[in-house]
Amino acid sequence: MKNKKFKVGLIGFGTVGSGVAKILLEDKDILKAKTGIDFELAKIVDLDTTTDRGVKVPDGVLTDDINAILKDESIDVAIELVGGTTIAKTFTENMLKAGKHVVTANKALLAKHGIELYKLAKDNDKAIAFEASCAGGIPVVLALRSGLVANNIQRIYGILNGTCNYILTSMSSKNEDFPVALKKAQELGYAEADPTLDINGGDSAHKLAVLASYAFGYEIEFDDVWVDGIEKVSIEDINWGKKMGYTIKLLGIAEKDNDEMISLRVVPAFVANDEIISQVSGPFNAVSIFGSNVGETMYYGRGAGMLPTASAVVSDIVELALGNSKNTFDALEFKPKEEAQKHLLKIDSLKSRFYIRLQAADKAGVFSKIGDILAKHNISISGVLQQEGNSPENTVPVIITTHLTKQIDVAAAIKALGELDIVSSEPTCIEIVDIPNDEV
Amino acid sequence: MKNKKFKVGLIGFGTVGSGVAKILLEDKDILKAKTGIDFELAKIVDLDTTTDRGVKVPDGVLTDDINAILKDESIDVAIELVGGTTIAKTFTENMLKAGKHVVTANKALLAKHGIELYKLAKDNDKAIAFEASCAGGIPVVLALRSGLVANNIQRIYGILNGTCNYILTSMSSKNEDFPVALKKAQELGYAEADPTLDINGGDSAHKLAVLASYAFGYEIEFDDVWVDGIEKVSIEDINWGKKMGYTIKLLGIAEKDNDEMISLRVVPAFVANDEIISQVSGPFNAVSIFGSNVGETMYYGRGAGMLPTASAVVSDIVELALGNSKNTFDALEFKPKEEAQKHLLKIDSLKSRFYIRLQAADKAGVFSKIGDILAKHNISISGVLQQEGNSPENTVPVIITTHLTKQIDVAAAIKALGELDIVSSEPTCIEIVDIPNDEV
Repeated sequence: MKNKKFKVGLIGFGTVGSGVAKILLEDKDILKAKTGIDFELAKIVDLDTTTDRGVKVPDGVLTDDINAILKDESIDVAIELVGGTTIAKTFTENMLKAGKHVVTANKALLAKHGIELYKLAKDNDKAIAFEASCAGGIPVVLALRSGLVANNIQRIYGILNGTCNYILTSMSSKNEDFPVALKKAQELGYAEADPTLDINGGDSAHKLAVLASYAFGYEIEFDDVWVDGIEKVSIEDINWGKKMGYTIKLLGIAEKDNDEMISLRVVPAFVANDEIISQVSGPFNAVSIFGSNVGETMYYGRGAGMLPTASAVVSDIVELALGNSKNTFDALEFKPKEEAQKHLLKIDSLKSRFYIRLQAADKAGVFSKIGDILAKHNISISGVLQQEGNSPENTVPVIITTHLTKQIDVAAAIKALGELDIVSSEPTCIEIVDIPNDEV
Repeated sequence: MKNKKFKVGLIGFGTVGSGVAKILLEDKDILKAKTGIDFELAKIVDLDTTTDRGVKVPDGVLTDDINAILKDESIDVAIELVGGTTIAKTFTENMLKAGKHVVTANKALLAKHGIELYKLAKDNDKAIAFEASCAGGIPVVLALRSGLVANNIQRIYGILNGTCNYILTSMSSKNEDFPVALKKAQELGYAEADPTLDINGGDSAHKLAVLASYAFGYEIEFDDVWVDGIEKVSIEDINWGKKMGYTIKLLGIAEKDNDEMISLRVVPAFVANDEIISQVSGPFNAVSIFGSNVGETMYYGRGAGMLPTASAVVSDIVELALGNSKNTFDALEFKPKEEAQKHLLKIDSLKSRFYIRLQAADKAGVFSKIGDILAKHNISISGVLQQEGNSPENTVPVIITTHLTKQIDVAAAIKALGELDIVSSEPTCIEIVDIPNDEV
């Protein structure tokens, strides 16, 4: 391996691209010392060749011509960092066909076209590496691929979006409403000007689809994930959760039961404070993975940001250069979509526990009416909290937590409760995720 | 890679060995599906060939003759699980010389003879893999080796011994004294009949030496680590720490500063409750690694146990079979011991914060005497707590926390404080580890 050279072509010179360039140029000696390999940043392609990115790039490296990478046979790997699912797909396909490995941080691309692209890579005897696509700098794909290879992966619980975790942490610690926390997150650079894909759970769902495919070995896409965002999470519910010992998190959950049935969802969820994942705060991400032999493991770190994400991209470049990624990629197989569909549980049949809050009239008979509706929908009550005191218009908040209940039953009960004349505003409902003990 | 066969020889059929056999035999199909490789458990060598380990081993596999592995050229890898540093070393050397890769879970062996064995492996064009030697089932060696390869590793904080963490968690949550918590841990199987090497910090120090060598690229041995155990940790100190927002952990700490100076220690330490590592409880382990580009990452899971440890051993077997471990191992280099020694900081010059508790006479002038001694030893006080009330013999507990102070100064001050006539029992001292924010 000594004195081997490995040439890198970078497509997209934005935030992450700048980080990758910085590491390849400024940490060249570290990489050489750890691997014996000379990594050369041969070309960077971006439409904007003039903006200063704070990285000193050698003359002749930055260009706006994709052919500078595509047609240079000496370039071993193309790093796709343009984002989106259209031109990024074309670039990826063309680079694979041109005999280059591809490294990508593009979860949307993989969640939509991953399996097709993996197949194309194999047909061309190349590999696609995508550590940076899920949970940024945290080497969680590596853990699934190699560290936990001796396990049947049973469950994944992920805090996969730093923007959402930052906002929920701020709301909880500073008693802020969602719009206030969002605005502050934007001011501090933790949320984009258009934060839609983060806060609606879409970004987390892309990452969950990629992780679940990889963990369970099925062709799983974004559309297979049931998604709810954090826009409707209120400070009232967060505070009630606190009183009961719960922290709210936007969780990506992928579970496979003993009958090989898979459920996939992204939901704001209450998690008990003594679960380690509930303590992951601010912009940090974490992924808890349950394996049949190892039990629970968790991986924690920065899920976004220039250098953390670039750290993951460069680790992929190194693993490709060493030949490791190709070995593992060759062994990768997914059961096809038709097969996957047979194993996907619909959200309706999901059983979980739930927190329900409603504002009810403070008079006799109220509990009986609420209880009737819950019973009618097969919902068994685990706990009830009713606050004393003077609430608006002689109403009081009533908090109910349920035992294991079907999601479809809870949804119907919430609707029926909202229609009661004694209930003065739309009830809120948040899933309570009881992370099980491992059994090893 | 399809239809490749990989033959495994297992030396040592104890707890972990049984787990490895179980996975290789019972999860053969999972391994085949994930890698395309047929793993065959060819031989198990153990002096005891009769005890039932709860794993059904095919006829002819279990033997007491080491030559069954050593002389079988078709066996690709030997798994050393005999423990200790004498016969385990001989087996490892002989297996390498016989042209076999070696997988080991033996941190004591590696912390004492690792560099010598790595060299022997390279001379024989083989690899040694040791994921299971540190933090059991948690793929932390893999993270250092591959996931964080694009980083200058700056700091490691590890909860590396499940026995200690279980005992400290029990003491803290159940208000138990050390002997009581130890006894319960023994009854539940979380501590050995002879728990010395766990509770005196030795086991953690072995693991820290292995991780630090690997992370920093220097030849670091067990003797380079300053070690303190948990035997003297009292429930009083734990409870005072709680009041100040700290949790006690036995931490293995390896730090490298900007001048490439390295400090290594295993100490019972107070960690602020808002640090995620402080929330790692019971028998779980966790390793927090700071990289120059990725910032803080943390890896959490079971650090011991039959199947979790076996999960790590089998991941090494798989990575060897795929060719990945060999690629990475070949690139591994350590600066020699003489070079390492120039970079090791002595514990005396370590600067940290400290918690000091003493039982002082409840009368005028006490604080002045204590303050004099601290000032004389260049110790600046960060906080003081003195409890009101009737303590034994008209004394009161006084708690002092310091600003950054040299360890040698604190040690001298503690001695001087203990000699004061107004101080009625030996003062206790616990390091306060302020885990820094990452800077990415």
